[in-house]
Amino acid sequence: MRNFKIVLQYEGTRYKGWQRQVSTENTIQGKLEALLTKMIGQKVEITGSGRTDAGVHALGQVANFHADTKMSPEEILNYMNFYLPEDIAVISVREVSERFHSRLNVKGKTYCYRVIRTEVPCVFDRRYAHLMKESLDVAAMQKAAEYLVGTHDFKAFTSSKKGKKSTVRTIEKIEIIKTTSTSMRMQNVQDEIRFVYSGNGFLFHMVRIMTGTLLEVGLHKRKPEEVAEILDSGLRENAGELVPAKGLILMEVRY
Amino acid sequence: MRNFKIVLQYEGTRYKGWQRQVSTENTIQGKLEALLTKMIGQKVEITGSGRTDAGVHALGQVANFHADTKMSPEEILNYMNFYLPEDIAVISVREVSERFHSRLNVKGKTYCYRVIRTEVPCVFDRRYAHLMKESLDVAAMQKAAEYLVGTHDFKAFTSSKKGKKSTVRTIEKIEIIKTTSTSMRMQNVQDEIRFVYSGNGFLFHMVRIMTGTLLEVGLHKRKPEEVAEILDSGLRENAGELVPAKGLILMEVRY
Repeated sequence: MRNFKIVLQYEGTRYKGWQRQVSTENTIQGKLEALLTKMIGQKVEITGSGRTDAGVHALGQVANFHADTKMSPEEILNYMNFYLPEDIAVISVREVSERFHSRLNVKGKTYCYRVIRTEVPCVFDRRYAHLMKESLDVAAMQKAAEYLVGTHDFKAFTSSKKGKKSTVRTIEKIEIIKTTSTSMRMQNVQDEIRFVYSGNGFLFHMVRIMTGTLLEVGLHKRKPEEVAEILDSGLRENAGELVPAKGLILMEVRY
Repeated sequence: MRNFKIVLQYEGTRYKGWQRQVSTENTIQGKLEALLTKMIGQKVEITGSGRTDAGVHALGQVANFHADTKMSPEEILNYMNFYLPEDIAVISVREVSERFHSRLNVKGKTYCYRVIRTEVPCVFDRRYAHLMKESLDVAAMQKAAEYLVGTHDFKAFTSSKKGKKSTVRTIEKIEIIKTTSTSMRMQNVQDEIRFVYSGNGFLFHMVRIMTGTLLEVGLHKRKPEEVAEILDSGLRENAGELVPAKGLILMEVRY
């Protein structure tokens, strides 16, 4: 069996997330498996680097699948892009060693959470960013983010209720960047803050809860130092709100 | 009667352009007039700075309307944004002098045409840019664009067949800018070229035909100097192809 690694882009808006579900076909994994099964002529299972939740987007999701086929990677790429709906695209297909596993071999991931500060609706980014009317104290959020960088037990920052698995993760870097100009937004009326998280792995809802917590710091509802206390407490209720899925993008998976 | 100037954003994808039509409500002007008529309680007509074609977007379209109302500009803005569909947004409402006319008083406009160079589908910009697989010679296009800058008869660059009106326009500036990084596109796989046109007015299809002509220069199908000959000929068939509407955005209207 040959093993193929694929890099994917998708807009999560109309999907129930990455993971295949019994009751519905409307998942990214479900769409891809149905297409690959048709292409190969026998059942194909695809493994993603990890799940993305309903509504979350991906710029560089990675997955792999094993298949008996004579098709070249390029033929697979063209076939898939021809049949996939326009909100899913294959960026690359590469044949890899039999042992490559897109989830078990992950070394790191980068997520971006986009917040657009605007007092009016934002037509062009309405599906790809979280909109806020209030202004945000970027310096305070950067200070708060420093407490999250490093190796910590992130139990307070996950919605997962399974108690058995480790909730220790390492965050290598958090960048909070203010940008004011793009072609699709009006300067002086709308600006954007990007929260870029790189780490060795992220728990269920972790990026969205971290961002929700940092936003509360940016709104001066919390002090930056409280983040350390939240981490120490290990209690979900101490952390901030879960921000909407549509602002989150899986940027890159590293191996 | 009070006179209100409004600045608008819209995604043109599902509209038959700006201009109200008898047969369909699905125009930007039609949507706005229906809403304002409901808001004011009597028939309201809205005047745009100019038409935009079916599928063309706007980041800073300007319009004005006269109405007998006690509502403040801010109340109008909030009312409109509450009821408008999510692909139309009002950025600002300002009361202006009785004599302000959003079409007759235009001093200049800026349009942007976005081309994304990619060999694979582009999920996030699929509605807002024209996608091309081929690489483009930006320097040759910049050289060709110089022939278009200035005051010329742009008869060869319009689809309009009405022979009576002047087809002389002045283009102040054309910028052709290559950008490689945004959060919603993969570097090394996808880059973008923006064609930014500023002028005192543009004829029907003029920006899209100029861009189509410049792209043929960028693909080395034409030489930059040919642009001067096309202008001189005044013949539409000598100019390049009309590029798709979805790549075009009305950026700004100046008064």
